[in-house]
Parts: sequence; C-alpha cells; structure tokens
Amino acid sequence: MASDLRPPEHQVAGHRSSADKLGPLVDGEGLFYKPLQAGERGEHEAAFYAAFTAHPAVPPRVRGAFFPRFHGTRFLPAPASPGGAPYPHIVLDDLLAGLPSPCVADVKIGACTWPPRSPDPYVAKCLAKDRETTSALLGFRVSGVRVVDARGGAVWRPDRSELKGIDAAGVRRVLRRYVSTGGGDGLDCALAAAVYGGEGGVLAQLRELKAWFEEQTLYHFYSASILFGYDANAAAAAAPGGGSGGVRVKLVDFAHVDDGDGVIDHNFLGGLCSLIKFIGDIVAEVQHCVLANVTHNKVPSNGERVNCLKEETSPSCR
Amino acid sequence: MASDLRPPEHQVAGHRSSADKLGPLVDGEGLFYKPLQAGERGEHEAAFYAAFTAHPAVPPRVRGAFFPRFHGTRFLPAPASPGGAPYPHIVLDDLLAGLPSPCVADVKIGACTWPPRSPDPYVAKCLAKDRETTSALLGFRVSGVRVVDARGGAVWRPDRSELKGIDAAGVRRVLRRYVSTGGGDGLDCALAAAVYGGEGGVLAQLRELKAWFEEQTLYHFYSASILFGYDANAAAAAAPGGGSGGVRVKLVDFAHVDDGDGVIDHNFLGGLCSLIKFIGDIVAEVQHCVLANVTHNKVPSNGERVNCLKEETSPSCR
Repeated sequence: MASDLRPPEHQVAGHRSSADKLGPLVDGEGLFYKPLQAGERGEHEAAFYAAFTAHPAVPPRVRGAFFPRFHGTRFLPAPASPGGAPYPHIVLDDLLAGLPSPCVADVKIGACTWPPRSPDPYVAKCLAKDRETTSALLGFRVSGVRVVDARGGAVWRPDRSELKGIDAAGVRRVLRRYVSTGGGDGLDCALAAAVYGGEGGVLAQLRELKAWFEEQTLYHFYSASILFGYDANAAAAAAPGGGSGGVRVKLVDFAHVDDGDGVIDHNFLGGLCSLIKFIGDIVAEVQHCVLANVTHNKVPSNGERVNCLKEETSPSCR
Repeated sequence: MASDLRPPEHQVAGHRSSADKLGPLVDGEGLFYKPLQAGERGEHEAAFYAAFTAHPAVPPRVRGAFFPRFHGTRFLPAPASPGGAPYPHIVLDDLLAGLPSPCVADVKIGACTWPPRSPDPYVAKCLAKDRETTSALLGFRVSGVRVVDARGGAVWRPDRSELKGIDAAGVRRVLRRYVSTGGGDGLDCALAAAVYGGEGGVLAQLRELKAWFEEQTLYHFYSASILFGYDANAAAAAAPGGGSGGVRVKLVDFAHVDDGDGVIDHNFLGGLCSLIKFIGDIVAEVQHCVLANVTHNKVPSNGERVNCLKEETSPSCR
C-alpha cells in the first residue's frame, strides 16, 4: 500500500509535499497521511485525535459526520532525510476519496486563532494575521479553494496571496464561485442549491454542527478549519431542489485545540454563525431568483427575458 | 425635575458621580442622565442612540425589549466647572426605575472589546484587559454586581478589583450568588427559577436576543454590556415555577459600536451563547435538585433528609 503513496492532487491549504519536502500523502485507497507538525504541535494534534476518538461525551453522530476518522499514527520514509529515515504521520480518512472532480474549500474558523493562554509573541503574530485577513472582521477566513468545472475540467485555484488580501465582498465572491459552473463571469451559482441548500447540503450540516457547539464544552478549536468537498459532476447532476450532491463538511487541523474546561467554544461558534449567515444569504438569494424567474416566466408571453427583482445586488440572478 | 437629580444608588459599573465629578444621574421619575464620554466616544454613543432609535430594520420588539429608550441629549450643570457650566448628557430610561430592592449585574459581552479597525495602542490596552479578565476565555466578564437580600436588606457588592481577578469558577459563583437570598454560604440559588428560568426570565430573554444576533448585520456591539435587574422582594414572592419576577435584560454602553456592514456580530453572539450556557447550567441544576428532592421526599418515610444526586458538584442542591 505504501508504494502507492503520493501527494494529494486537490490540497488547497497547508504545507505541500514534494520530492525533498515533507507534506501530506494519500494512498489511493481512502487514507490520508499527515506528517506530524514540528515542535509540540504534531504531538498535540495526534494526542487530540486519540482522545477525541475515545471520548465518551462526543456524540457518535457528530464524530462520524464532522470529523475525519483517525487510524492512529504511522512512520513513513521522509523524503529529505538520508536513506529516508522514517517520520511519524497521522493517518486519517482521505476526505476527498471517491470524488472524481473534487471542488474543495478550506475555511479557518474563529475571529481569534490563538488560545488565550498562548505566549505573547505567538499572540502578536496570530493577531496581526487575524487583522490582516478577514478573521477578526468576519470570524473566519478562506484559506484555500479549488473549483473544477464539470463541463470542461477547467480549474480555478487562487493562490494564497490572492486569498490573503480579500475583504468581505471578496469572501462573498469566493463563496459564490465555489458553487458556480464557470459560465459568464464565473458567478452563476448554478450549484448553490445542490451544494449549499437542501437537506444534506452545507447549510444544513453547518446548522447541525452549530447545535453541537452551543452545548459542547470539551474542546476549543483554535485555528481549526472546516473543509468542504463536493464532486462537480455529481453536483451538476443533482436535483435542483438541492442537497443530494453528496457534500462533505469536516473539521480539520487540530494542532491548537485547547481544553474547553466547561466553557463553550464561543470563538469557533461565533465564526461558524457568521459563515452560516454568508452561505444562508447565497441560498436565499438563489431561491429568490428561481422563484422570481418562475413567476415572471409565467406572466409574459412575448419571449422577452425578465430580470429578477434583486438583480442589481445579486449576481446570481440571471 | 432637574432639582431632583441625584446619583443612582444602584450603579454597579462605570464612572460614579460625586459633588465634584461628572457621573450618571437619575431624576426619580424614570429618567437616567449619562454624561457624554470624553473624546469621540460620547458623540459616538449619542449618534448611535439617535440612529438606532430611527432605524427601520431594527424590529420594534427588539428595540423595546432589549434597549433603553432614548430621550435625546440634554445639557445639565456640571459639578466641577466654575458656575456649573452645562455639560451634555444622553437621556435614557432609568432601567432600574420602580424596583424598590434592585439586584443588578453588568456583564460585558464579547471575547474582544475593541473594533477590528482600532489603532494599535488601543488594541494592546484592550487585549491586555481581555486576557487578564475572563473576556478572552469565556467570551464575557462580569463588570459589576449588586445583590440585596429581600429579608434583611443586606447588600453584597464586590468591588471592581475583586471582580477583575475572578476565573471561570468565580464567574459561576457570582452568577449563583446573584440569584441567592443569602442563606448559608449565600449560594442557595433560591431565586434562580424566578429570575433565570421560566417564560419571562433571563434565559428566555437572552435566547430571544440571540435569535436577533444570528440575523442582524447592522451593528457590532464592541464593549457593550448586558444589564440585568430584578427586584429582590418581587422575585422572592414570585411563583417558584419561574419567570414572573419582572426581570429586566438590557443592552447598554455603546461608545464602541461599529457598523455591521452586512456581517453578523460574531463576537457578541459568541459571548452571548457562552453566557446562555452558564446561566442555562444553573437553571438545569436547580430544576434537577427540585426534581431530586421531590422524588426522594416521596420515597423515604423516616424523616431523614435525602441528598441530591448531584450534590457534590452543585452547591445549589441542599
């Protein structure tokens, strides 16, 4: 199995693997190998996975639906070390396994990315980044995104510096483009109902996660991300009613998880609610446009295209 | 009316008025006069009240239930100025008017008390205080509290330095003591059901407020507080089922309110959810104890006092 190891094609955030650099690997059989991060972080993340997996107070439904399954740690040859001395990796489910044309977004949740008891220099570094990016203002930032067009296979994958500089309007555009098929200006939101909406869609999953965060006082997930994944072809083929696109919503990156000590993770919860509002607005807008077009199409018989009432403010109405 | 002006007896946070110092005043007829804060803050707060009062997107129910009514600004003689030169005051409803034995708590909401676009020295100052107090860790801090015992009139009013040093356990104790009648160690939680629980209680009101904060994108309430007020006698006389104690839950202190610009106030919302969890835990514990005592009292007939199952962890069970 180890001979099939290769860097994941669809990684959108974090360190990348190369011939002489450690980075995550996948084995093509559904497993994802994440090299332990330097210092205490890697140990801390592995310890979190071990404890979380066994914690009796974590509802099995939450663990199964929103977290990658943990398969322990394993030593793999490290590319740059002489003779490939083995390096420890956390073994997880590959969250994008089985998606032929995966569209991925990595959203780091929380206005504050540092645990309150961190040393001052680390606080200063994180705080500067939280204020430069949208974290402080929106309660989250988009760390990576990859959209593949089901029809042509064209890929949109903004680089990190591009994402780092965006503001609230930029985040709205990215979240729209993540569910667009690339027609027109790439903001058609053609897959919004299938991916964000409906029973199994992103919005419903985020709301279920939110209900847990309103109660859980076990962990504070500083600097963790929510990873979204869907298959471009499956989403395009899904019923327009939404939700059947097989969308995945998972928490990842637990190197800075802190004990909750009986207090809810208000920082993660606040950012999650903000993200829910952003995505909910897109779903509402698309529903409004569908409704407006249906209504309008029934009225005029001259074949003229009728514009949506909200067209000025809503690029998804066309 | 101006001749009746006097410092409020029951103020628990903020600058106090004295013979030679500006501070809030009440007129005994239901109005509260808050001197404009120095610099831009006072003007900013007055402008907020004027805009908020007239904003068509603020639901009248939210404005009426959770905000003091604004009666404009008025010039009043300033104590320390030569000849008492007039100084501008914001005129508001006195939130404690009509409560003969008011019990008050001022809880500053939000892990972060500075707007994201603040100058660096202000950020550094606020951040230090947010980390010293419970703000960063719990998403709120208790800024002031005053409890009067309905039976004897004894008052508990910890000073600011005492409140500044408390941790999560200390916050739990303060929130318990706020609804206790002073029997035993002062943590009997005898009024918890009447004040925190039931239909019109604190918990129900906070949940209604939360629903608005999940949607509203008009304002970000940095450094604002929620003020709780109830009358010790009315609460003691209220039905034990809860909620009929005439509890008041109001937002105050708007010198650092920022425009929402289409984004929810994730910082306030997160802290509010954390406070809801703290208070919800107390209500659940008290309900549990009542239930346990009722159940136990029915079983044994030897007159022995039966302890509550949760007694070890819950001081309110006795």
